[in-house]
Amino acid sequence: MPNLATLLYPDAISRVPLTVRFVETDLMGIVHHANYLIYFEQARVEYFLRRGAVFEEWAQRGIHFPVVESHVRYRKPAFFNQQLMIDCWLHEVSRASARFDYAIYADQQQLTEGYTVIACVNSQRKLQRVPDDILALMKASESYISQ
Amino acid sequence: MPNLATLLYPDAISRVPLTVRFVETDLMGIVHHANYLIYFEQARVEYFLRRGAVFEEWAQRGIHFPVVESHVRYRKPAFFNQQLMIDCWLHEVSRASARFDYAIYADQQQLTEGYTVIACVNSQRKLQRVPDDILALMKASESYISQ
Amino acid sequence: MPNLATLLYPDAISRVPLTVRFVETDLMGIVHHANYLIYFEQARVEYFLRRGAVFEEWAQRGIHFPVVESHVRYRKPAFFNQQLMIDCWLHEVSRASARFDYAIYADQQQLTEGYTVIACVNSQRKLQRVPDDILALMKASESYISQ
Amino acid sequence: MPNLATLLYPDAISRVPLTVRFVETDLMGIVHHANYLIYFEQARVEYFLRRGAVFEEWAQRGIHFPVVESHVRYRKPAFFNQQLMIDCWLHEVSRASARFDYAIYADQQQLTEGYTVIACVNSQRKLQRVPDDILALMKASESYISQ
Repeated sequence: MPNLATLLYPDAISRVPLTVRFVETDLMGIVHHANYLIYFEQARVEYFLRRGAVFEEWAQRGIHFPVVESHVRYRKPAFFNQQLMIDCWLHEVSRASARFDYAIYADQQQLTEGYTVIACVNSQRKLQRVPDDILALMKASESYISQ
Repeated sequence: MPNLATLLYPDAISRVPLTVRFVETDLMGIVHHANYLIYFEQARVEYFLRRGAVFEEWAQRGIHFPVVESHVRYRKPAFFNQQLMIDCWLHEVSRASARFDYAIYADQQQLTEGYTVIACVNSQRKLQRVPDDILALMKASESYISQ
Repeated sequence: MPNLATLLYPDAISRVPLTVRFVETDLMGIVHHANYLIYFEQARVEYFLRRGAVFEEWAQRGIHFPVVESHVRYRKPAFFNQQLMIDCWLHEVSRASARFDYAIYADQQQLTEGYTVIACVNSQRKLQRVPDDILALMKASESYISQ
Repeated sequence: MPNLATLLYPDAISRVPLTVRFVETDLMGIVHHANYLIYFEQARVEYFLRRGAVFEEWAQRGIHFPVVESHVRYRKPAFFNQQLMIDCWLHEVSRASARFDYAIYADQQQLTEGYTVIACVNSQRKLQRVPDDILALMKASESYISQ
């Protein structure tokens, strides 16, 4: 878990479990590096869902959050069938984008860290301000449920 | 679970849990059909591991099991974050190949069924007889641990 | 190419090229078996597009074609960077479903064959009749362009 | 193409074509962001192969190059069936690692850019010096063929 004292939004964090699939590993049983962006996404989606997000409703309002930047640092390999824990937290949020940070652990060791920046765009993919209700949801703890 | 009375090897079955990843679904939240072969593989690998298989040792002995045939019947969709149970059992085994059958369930309902045939080949990909120790492992219950 | 004399709809065929990606292979450079369903899909989508299909328009009309059955027979392996040719043809079409067959070739050799059955469903996933315009498109040659 | 005048190794560049697969896109036809790491890998592998690399031989010598860091900036979306060009070049190389940079283009426009850092490790995943012959290969132009 990151040092909460250093976080801008110390409540805005979720921990998500995930088990490595066989197909995600190579013949030496090591997870292929592209899968970590998929693990990050899995954690981020879960982060939103635990706070009450309904993506279909956002899409109907013309609100989309494509990833515009990603960064991963791979420290130790993850293996087939390994149980991973992913911490996902809001690092910062600006007018039209937000950065989420991630740390992946297994057996008390940190394996990987990284971040993704998502932008708020409309259905024509033009940047727009993050709506207030979604901003509140992003900054909230897991006990928050959006209306 | 299949009707055990109809199985040739009623002990040769394992049940494997698996949670659907976001990336495995489309925008309507439905699992893409190619992923079921990956779920089947995940269950089959787990089937072997629970009986003590060490794939690296098999590879060193020049024993490989590529999939030579697959069949899937998709009855109901699976959704993001859904908890699935996969039953995997030995349907039949011949001199140089084996067929495993699968049924996938969620919320007491069967979603999908299918099978894959794996062939036993050497490192030059020539068919060879399934070795006796691996044959015993394939037919065994989960309480069996190969030496 | 299949024997056209044996086909119910001998014009209803397309040939689609495709190059194997590194990620689709294992450490021995052999394509993972689940990818063939993805290659079949790539060929089938291209089959529809070459006849003028506009999937967004179908979706707006509440017409969807999920895969309800798939079968693959893997004869020879495909390798990294290999140039494949996929033949995709309409095998048969009924009131509410259609079966497409596939054969994959490399270097004049057939590697793989299989089929997928797609069902015609509405937005509530209930079976419906294949609309006449789409039926005509499915049965047509590549020179056909739907309106 | 990057400004060659700014490159440390202006010959050490390759351009690799690639066509977007249906499965790599979402329902709006836009490539999922994790696939760009796969496109980068495809280009980097091709970069090595064009200079005569034989990965199996490297593996036998106990030389492996896992990705230890990745970064992607997504500027414009890529679409189904779009023909992409990926430029891949050596940005810098140190004792035990190398950074490759990438730019992806379609229709004369740059869509994406990024880099991956690969480390040179032995079969126990311990860092080791990049061997001289592989260093020469990495810095070379496409006309170079390693022995």
